[in-house]
Amino acid sequence: MVSDMSELSTVPEQQPEFGKVVIFGVGLIGGSFALALKSARAVGEVVGFGRRPASLREALELGVIDRAGINPAHELGDADLILVATPVGQMPDVFAQIASYMGSETVVTDGGSTKADVASAARAAFGERLGQFVPAHPIAGAEHSGAAASRSDLYQGRKVVVTPLPENTDAALDRVKRAWALCGADIYELTPELHDRVFAAVSHLPHLLAFALVRDLAERSDAALFFDFAASGFRDFTRIAASHPEMWRDICLANRQALLAEIEAYQAQLNDLKAALARNDGDYLQQSFAVARAARRAWGDKQAR
Amino acid sequence: MVSDMSELSTVPEQQPEFGKVVIFGVGLIGGSFALALKSARAVGEVVGFGRRPASLREALELGVIDRAGINPAHELGDADLILVATPVGQMPDVFAQIASYMGSETVVTDGGSTKADVASAARAAFGERLGQFVPAHPIAGAEHSGAAASRSDLYQGRKVVVTPLPENTDAALDRVKRAWALCGADIYELTPELHDRVFAAVSHLPHLLAFALVRDLAERSDAALFFDFAASGFRDFTRIAASHPEMWRDICLANRQALLAEIEAYQAQLNDLKAALARNDGDYLQQSFAVARAARRAWGDKQAR
Repeated sequence: MVSDMSELSTVPEQQPEFGKVVIFGVGLIGGSFALALKSARAVGEVVGFGRRPASLREALELGVIDRAGINPAHELGDADLILVATPVGQMPDVFAQIASYMGSETVVTDGGSTKADVASAARAAFGERLGQFVPAHPIAGAEHSGAAASRSDLYQGRKVVVTPLPENTDAALDRVKRAWALCGADIYELTPELHDRVFAAVSHLPHLLAFALVRDLAERSDAALFFDFAASGFRDFTRIAASHPEMWRDICLANRQALLAEIEAYQAQLNDLKAALARNDGDYLQQSFAVARAARRAWGDKQAR
Repeated sequence: MVSDMSELSTVPEQQPEFGKVVIFGVGLIGGSFALALKSARAVGEVVGFGRRPASLREALELGVIDRAGINPAHELGDADLILVATPVGQMPDVFAQIASYMGSETVVTDGGSTKADVASAARAAFGERLGQFVPAHPIAGAEHSGAAASRSDLYQGRKVVVTPLPENTDAALDRVKRAWALCGADIYELTPELHDRVFAAVSHLPHLLAFALVRDLAERSDAALFFDFAASGFRDFTRIAASHPEMWRDICLANRQALLAEIEAYQAQLNDLKAALARNDGDYLQQSFAVARAARRAWGDKQAR
């Protein structure tokens, strides 16, 4: 038996698809990416960089990363893939470091929730090497954050939107799509601008609307009375109002133009319903609610499949 | 053994607290009220009235009611308690019937989601016998509706807001509170006007806002693209946009003044956040979101206790 095991261990392992992966920002997004690639046996070594030594130490202890990087100048030249999973606000600085040290074969991607601003920061930082940077957005939030919340199956069956730049080579694009596919994700392609317009409407606006409702109540002198009678409809509607204020400040600012346009479309919609209510137009309200109900049900049915 | 059982069955049963209960509208609310009182052994007989014979037959077959009433003139004089659980729009007609036939000891209550309009309809119908009508609002919706969805534990640990009228006798008020307490509910008292103001803010407005968001997307020519990328935040925020259009038309119209005031307060709030976004004021956005997050978390913690 012992000789069997010894024989097994001497069988040469297949080369992993990504020899060296470097992750900037080892939180939920970056950490789960590392764990998913490890679980797929698709990575040789994961090196993590981060601003907080405690987070890196935790990621190391949990086996999320294999090493904490010390000097980017020594780690990026031979990296096959770099994921920038820091808050979007830190990306310009991180991009500048990467641009200085990455190798000619290194492919870089990110995990930011907005894409036009990331593409623009990348354009400024990478210059002639912009083709090596492929922006992406994994649609996978979770209640918890941080390296300790990382899960190898976070991206299983989830969507990742890749927003290629005209400068991207097919090879770089394929590598990034392949990495996310190895994580179990379904890959979609949009332009950065269309991505931002879509997510302004289906994600950023709802967050802003939920924050607005809760703040509207919280600022009243008799707020406690209102909260006392809030029930399950309120609970679900406002769940996202417990989201992280700094993160959502950054997302709103980063996607300001698209979000402002969505707010205005929504205000027009709300004014329309308000006018119907003011003129006691029950038919109009019912028809409007029915349009919403039918669309919401169709969406829910599709999600459940 | 047989003689033991025979002895047991001859022990005189205690008189139930409510000898005869009549329910108008045997759907989820009315049916669950009946089942809860039966489960508490607090009712002698439940008689149901309704517009659809098929619903009454179903309620009868399921044991939710003991008899389907035929003629209110024959059933209301000896009723101890009458619950009107029809849609609010049908209540004026039902109240007029009840006022004609109820006994001098009969106590009447309702299960409507708005209270000032119900109180006003009751005032018109019951005249000098208004003291016998105590408005109430059980805060218990569910995904499903109809008699078949009724559950004896629907009200267990849920809130019921009783909104007494100045004309109510202490005895009538106590009977209604006692019935809901027997259903397992926690009883609160508000005036009808304050009730409507509170529920406009924490329930009716969120429904309108969710309907508005989904309709805003559904009416776009490229709606499918947006729905494709909607995720869990959208799912929870818009769950109530799948609510019943006729029911919510009626609630919005019934609570029109309070809801219009809440829409305006919300529009001011949304304009405030929009202005901060337009002037790129990240500090203001972050502080606003932090107020909402703190309030939402405190509310969630309290609910979980």
